[in-house]
Amino acid sequence: MAVALVQGASRGLGLHFCKHLLTRRKDATVIATCRRPAEATALHALLAGFPHSLAVFQLDATREAEVRETAEAVAKDYGRLDLLVNCGAILHPSGRGETSLRDVSAEGLSVTLATNAIGPLLVAKHFSPLLLNGTGAFGRQHADLDRKHQALLVNITAKVGSIGDNGLGGWYSYRMSKAALNMATKNLSIELRRGKAKVVCVSLHPGTVDTDLSKPYHKNVPKGKLFSPEHSVNCLMHIIDKLDMGQTGKFFAWDGSELPW
Amino acid sequence: MAVALVQGASRGLGLHFCKHLLTRRKDATVIATCRRPAEATALHALLAGFPHSLAVFQLDATREAEVRETAEAVAKDYGRLDLLVNCGAILHPSGRGETSLRDVSAEGLSVTLATNAIGPLLVAKHFSPLLLNGTGAFGRQHADLDRKHQALLVNITAKVGSIGDNGLGGWYSYRMSKAALNMATKNLSIELRRGKAKVVCVSLHPGTVDTDLSKPYHKNVPKGKLFSPEHSVNCLMHIIDKLDMGQTGKFFAWDGSELPW
Repeated sequence: MAVALVQGASRGLGLHFCKHLLTRRKDATVIATCRRPAEATALHALLAGFPHSLAVFQLDATREAEVRETAEAVAKDYGRLDLLVNCGAILHPSGRGETSLRDVSAEGLSVTLATNAIGPLLVAKHFSPLLLNGTGAFGRQHADLDRKHQALLVNITAKVGSIGDNGLGGWYSYRMSKAALNMATKNLSIELRRGKAKVVCVSLHPGTVDTDLSKPYHKNVPKGKLFSPEHSVNCLMHIIDKLDMGQTGKFFAWDGSELPW
Repeated sequence: MAVALVQGASRGLGLHFCKHLLTRRKDATVIATCRRPAEATALHALLAGFPHSLAVFQLDATREAEVRETAEAVAKDYGRLDLLVNCGAILHPSGRGETSLRDVSAEGLSVTLATNAIGPLLVAKHFSPLLLNGTGAFGRQHADLDRKHQALLVNITAKVGSIGDNGLGGWYSYRMSKAALNMATKNLSIELRRGKAKVVCVSLHPGTVDTDLSKPYHKNVPKGKLFSPEHSVNCLMHIIDKLDMGQTGKFFAWDGSELPW
């Protein structure tokens, strides 16, 4: 059995990661977490189709006590994780990224950083013992015996979180939060390869995906560049399926190309 | 007259930026801001020596209303800024950077991100109208007439805020906050060169400096690598004095070398 956890699974990419794993990996048990399971209707519909291989847990990643409790519950039920995907994110509490400094606010920055950077790191912290206990059921095992991994940790960030690639500016809160999360990925990759620890940690850019987060901007996306969540997840899983310890600490786009920090 | 503002000036690098400017730039008026002026004894001593060229304002960069009010007061008194240096920073509320995930906490991340990333950006937001009104009295003016700058905006970040350079891990909160601030620098450099705006925005790494922030780690610093604040500020001012619009959006170390993001 392969055990995967998807954080932020009620909609968008997270929901489609669950769907993909349940339909394409018959050996997978999928743990879907979201802030308000009672309101997650799409997740409940999925649960009806996969009652034995999907489990839903409540998890607000910004509340550390809740992250700890959920990690304890998952540890009790499953004992390990082979894959953790941090998907939960917002563009900005207003739903629109800042176009200029005029739109920047302490509150917008604070909430976006908490959701997109602090939350995923707290999840990594409390679930890392489970990752270290993984069986390496996802990714591709390195030929070198002492580089075989226990698990994969995937943070969904974004190309607009690349400082080096930033040519347009704007979206202060979102860009800063994703740059901070990219730093967390790098740090995690270092900590989780010490001693016997072998967890592959990467940041992935999903492309511009047709989700609630990007909805206000769809009209600006060139034809053919707006991915369905299914397509984006297909691309990302293609990368994930080939990950080994040689890729830990890197930042990849949906097409497998490496992105600058 | 050249007008400079140093945010976080009660001690450490900020205090020494004020000292340097007051003693080396006889034409400079220096505005020093700090959270609690009443307790800033070193700044008061400096004020006694330079009563006409130094002014102290209260400013907690994390409180947006206070940032706005102080910007209004400075606008009323001076009408412009030629240089803004964001120095205010903490390593972690505990005084020690996280050595591993075990030390990571929601509170530590949140407070560090607020002080080191959100605060400096709020200062940039509310003081940017003053920078756009600057006379270019700092830096070196570009030979090309339409690339002459109005002012300089310097964010003191750190090499440990470079994701690409990160080889040791740890210090999650500090590293993430400085990566986020580096993204803010890049965004600011783009916004503040649009149209007639010409503000040079850079991130600078001061080296490992003998300040309260680094004190717990001094014993680990190789001999000759621990800079006095005076030496670090000398090096940084050497870079600042040569800045022009060609350098905007970049990240430099104390020795002038460019750092990766």
